[in-house]
Amino acid sequence: MSVQDYSETFTVPFYECDAAGTLHLSALMNHLVLCSEQQLTSLDVGPKFMLSLGMGWVTTQYQIEITRLPQLHEQVRVVTRATQYNKFFCYRDFWLYDDQDNELAFVRSVWVVISFATRKMVHLPEVLTAKIASEFKPEVVRFPRIPKVDWTKADNLNKVFRVRYFDIDTNHHVNNAHYFDWMLDSLPLAFLKSHTVKSMSIKYDNEVTYGDEIVSRAQLNELTSHHQIRNGEQLAAEATITWQ
Amino acid sequence: MSVQDYSETFTVPFYECDAAGTLHLSALMNHLVLCSEQQLTSLDVGPKFMLSLGMGWVTTQYQIEITRLPQLHEQVRVVTRATQYNKFFCYRDFWLYDDQDNELAFVRSVWVVISFATRKMVHLPEVLTAKIASEFKPEVVRFPRIPKVDWTKADNLNKVFRVRYFDIDTNHHVNNAHYFDWMLDSLPLAFLKSHTVKSMSIKYDNEVTYGDEIVSRAQLNELTSHHQIRNGEQLAAEATITWQ
Repeated sequence: MSVQDYSETFTVPFYECDAAGTLHLSALMNHLVLCSEQQLTSLDVGPKFMLSLGMGWVTTQYQIEITRLPQLHEQVRVVTRATQYNKFFCYRDFWLYDDQDNELAFVRSVWVVISFATRKMVHLPEVLTAKIASEFKPEVVRFPRIPKVDWTKADNLNKVFRVRYFDIDTNHHVNNAHYFDWMLDSLPLAFLKSHTVKSMSIKYDNEVTYGDEIVSRAQLNELTSHHQIRNGEQLAAEATITWQ
Repeated sequence: MSVQDYSETFTVPFYECDAAGTLHLSALMNHLVLCSEQQLTSLDVGPKFMLSLGMGWVTTQYQIEITRLPQLHEQVRVVTRATQYNKFFCYRDFWLYDDQDNELAFVRSVWVVISFATRKMVHLPEVLTAKIASEFKPEVVRFPRIPKVDWTKADNLNKVFRVRYFDIDTNHHVNNAHYFDWMLDSLPLAFLKSHTVKSMSIKYDNEVTYGDEIVSRAQLNELTSHHQIRNGEQLAAEATITWQ
């Protein structure tokens, strides 16, 4: 089956923008995932079909490169393509373009399918891979490693977030996009106001659930920040961001 | 000038739904406001024009009646109409319909225009009212009163929320929609899972700003809940909700 691209346009609404009128990173990621969901729906293997299998897609990793995030009222276009898959992992790329076809962002992602009954990952069902993926390649694609950081130092930035009712999505877990807000919100206001994300590697390790009090901790070294979401003793997610 | 209706359709995306696959009330309110913004833009008095005046629209009150909130992937239609105005207040109604033209929600709202320089309300500029409002009527339209509640009782439900960087919108204040999440999230999980909002009166009193720690306090009596958002000694917003 040949590689299939799928695209959607959207106009950036006020409620997805920060004080500078720039699209939230979390909102961008929601729109990317929505575009891939719509591609799957167009191939008759969308969320309803997944539900009938008792399964759902979960992202485990993103590698994000941003030229600029779009502005309030700007019309932009998302393009997505499932690039390759193996027994457990499906790899998918996303591009964001402005209305002059300038590339605003490029995102690589890793997806797995979980069983709702066990919350554990399963082999990618052939009924899916036959439709969505361009090519089976047995190897695991390497993403940039998130560097080890010494979190025992005293100068970590820390903010506590309680997982709210409205953070939980229809997959009964926290929508991945919230992790972006938790991570970025832990940085100082003055820094957030004067810098934008240039690149970000994020890896999801363990689910968090309603009522959990998670700690978003960060270290900021000039134009690089390191992030962890801790849920008690457990690592929920980690990331590295470079800023411009 | 005759009454003008304006409508927009949207499809409910996964990232605006709760675990039951129902649209968040806060997301509905965002879509309503977006629809009125698009009407104003179509009349050449949209947000860019307001910015050129150094002014912005702010909601002070909503009266919300809900038959049902739409479900994930459902296509719905918002209709809005500015019904009347006086020297300071513009009144606007909204309707939400499903694809069979069944009414899902009806919302009345009160709007004022603030100066960004002073953050205080100003007379509605005639350049706006000439375009948007059907009729000048000097009287102040009465909305249902939010009942006085004895908050000194010990059995209040309380949750603390810190105003986050991404809660602040391009008007440099907290997007009104967040108040819905703060208020509802203060109620017990089991109640939220088994009930939906039937009607809600909400009134905004004072702005909150980045970093503020607000208390969302509630009293729940069978199918009615009372809510206040307190910012220290100050009342930020209050509401009454009936549930079904």
